[in-house]
Amino acid sequence: MGVRVGHLQVIVSIDSREGAERVGRALVEARLVACFQVIGPMSSIYRWKGEIEQAEEWLCLAKTTTERFDELRERLVVLHPYENPEIIATPIVAGHADYLQWISAETAPAVRS
Amino acid sequence: MGVRVGHLQVIVSIDSREGAERVGRALVEARLVACFQVIGPMSSIYRWKGEIEQAEEWLCLAKTTTERFDELRERLVVLHPYENPEIIATPIVAGHADYLQWISAETAPAVRS
Amino acid sequence: MGVRVGHLQVIVSIDSREGAERVGRALVEARLVACFQVIGPMSSIYRWKGEIEQAEEWLCLAKTTTERFDELRERLVVLHPYENPEIIATPIVAGHADYLQWISAETAPAVRS
Repeated sequence: MGVRVGHLQVIVSIDSREGAERVGRALVEARLVACFQVIGPMSSIYRWKGEIEQAEEWLCLAKTTTERFDELRERLVVLHPYENPEIIATPIVAGHADYLQWISAETAPAVRS
Repeated sequence: MGVRVGHLQVIVSIDSREGAERVGRALVEARLVACFQVIGPMSSIYRWKGEIEQAEEWLCLAKTTTERFDELRERLVVLHPYENPEIIATPIVAGHADYLQWISAETAPAVRS
Repeated sequence: MGVRVGHLQVIVSIDSREGAERVGRALVEARLVACFQVIGPMSSIYRWKGEIEQAEEWLCLAKTTTERFDELRERLVVLHPYENPEIIATPIVAGHADYLQWISAETAPAVRS
């Protein structure tokens, strides 16, 4: 290609394990992420309308490419149950080459014949 | 402002859930983080005085801005029970715009009248 | 040294807690990571031979330097039970200086007399 594709770890929080797994399956199915990992529960502490709140959430870790991120983010905003969901991406700056190539291959849009 | 504010995910490990949640509440209260998530327990393996040790810890994930990081780090060093606590930051290079704006708004120093 | 050493958080997934802890002890022993944290279980969702699969894994978070990463990756590929293991690194762009120095010290190759 000539252009080096970057890879991202995308971090999302969702309020139930079942909801998180449902979102994950939809994103793998759509080839927007190569994998989607759900871990929890965790306690999330934040301010809401001036009060400190604490809620139970599940942490989701997904792998994708920089090329696919915009479409992933748009889809996640639709699939996610919150009004303003946590969707953040951290860069993958090194890794096992075969694994990075697997992320690229699994997120390449499917060619339809 | 003219300057693009960066966002960070800050990672901290603490030896009890209660201690982690106490630190988290203090940091949200002080507007040094927009949210503070506590997950665990995890097994931490490391070398201490020449021996391999294993300890139970809780993983904490906080969101803040690059502008607030130095003050956050200074406060964390005081609040954290360890002599040399794990406090590291990874960059947030992309994300849902409304969520990133929420991090910025929640960590802006309060204006007092 | 004159050259600023970078630090990395390395992320690995392994299919059992015992296997993950065994890998972690070997890497700390070899001074390839300063610490190795194991948390889980998590549900991993991915495509395998055209089908969506779901498996239980443990998330591993290790700290090292950019200088030690290549040797760490090579050792991990050997120690890890998978054919194509998840081994990815995210940059540590800020942190508690004493903790970052501890990572550097604990991963410096041992001097043998």
